[in-house]
Amino acid sequence: MSDLTLYLATGTCAMAVHIALTEARAHHQVKRLDLAAGEQRSAAYLAINPKGRVPALVTERGVLTETPALLIYVAQRFPDAKLAPLDDPFLLARMQEVNSFLASTVHVSHAHGRRGSRWADDEQAVAAMQAKVPQNMRDGFADIERHYLVGPWVLGERFSLADIYLFVVAGWLESDGVAISEFPRVAAHYQQMLTRPGVQQALAL
Amino acid sequence: MSDLTLYLATGTCAMAVHIALTEARAHHQVKRLDLAAGEQRSAAYLAINPKGRVPALVTERGVLTETPALLIYVAQRFPDAKLAPLDDPFLLARMQEVNSFLASTVHVSHAHGRRGSRWADDEQAVAAMQAKVPQNMRDGFADIERHYLVGPWVLGERFSLADIYLFVVAGWLESDGVAISEFPRVAAHYQQMLTRPGVQQALAL
Repeated sequence: MSDLTLYLATGTCAMAVHIALTEARAHHQVKRLDLAAGEQRSAAYLAINPKGRVPALVTERGVLTETPALLIYVAQRFPDAKLAPLDDPFLLARMQEVNSFLASTVHVSHAHGRRGSRWADDEQAVAAMQAKVPQNMRDGFADIERHYLVGPWVLGERFSLADIYLFVVAGWLESDGVAISEFPRVAAHYQQMLTRPGVQQALAL
Repeated sequence: MSDLTLYLATGTCAMAVHIALTEARAHHQVKRLDLAAGEQRSAAYLAINPKGRVPALVTERGVLTETPALLIYVAQRFPDAKLAPLDDPFLLARMQEVNSFLASTVHVSHAHGRRGSRWADDEQAVAAMQAKVPQNMRDGFADIERHYLVGPWVLGERFSLADIYLFVVAGWLESDGVAISEFPRVAAHYQQMLTRPGVQQALAL
């Protein structure tokens, strides 16, 4: 029996951790933050995650943050779910490569459309960042379409955490001004993810 | 006997992978790219890493990229070096949390000082991003100083990949306009890293 509490917000990368927990049939609680109301900067939440962001996972041994780290934690903690090729150094590194690219490049591209003030104080600069979001999201997904998505899953026949994370980030394309249909393999992957009971269960909450 | 070739450039995060390989006493070759000369965009290199960035690690099974992924690959491939707590899900996630924060937040903050044109086409916007780099690097290292660096190593008594990656990123502070002495624990960690033979050997190359 695990004692895990996930702090998340709708529409954020924290949804990937929620789906991973659901796919793993892990016993867990979910607490939803209202980012628009600034709950991530409340004293109560900053005591859990001083960075004031989601996701945060409260475990028996302490709080963990950062989506790629939480994903691998779920896979290692619930190995029967086989969410990562833990015993194959090359395949595990490939999965981590995709997750790291999503976190450090694609998510960062997306964030420039909503939180440009993280990187510049000037309003015109923030607007200039917003203008470049569709191009950068397109470039990132072009790399995924051409080089990372073997099909049907990211790693080929083997479903993994990279599929979950890719699904969540691909869900941001439309609001970033990019049609997912520009990337047929990504679009097919997205549809296939929607048919998984674990995904449906997490999205229904 | 391993057959690994690491593509790197001086002063980049790829140095962390080089140090990890040296610490692991892994048989490997190093190929250095001249980023100023644009070698990362040559047809020969794009055939290895279509993203046109370093690091890239050529293995017997294919090319891997993204620093956090390459670091965990080195640890899993050369387990005798004990560069990661592979069998402890919580500690491994903590290490990955730090590596992911360095890659997705701190490295991204740093990159806005040098490659702001990734995120905006407007010259004034690029200048506005540069102006905010010291503040963002300070914020990132304040989180590391207060919350992540247990001491003497990131995970406490146990040396890990997070120490290597932190060392490389801390080496960027001065050029980003921040004195490492603002963060006494990070500064002490940096000095301790410099005494390690594996680090000295990698830096000497």
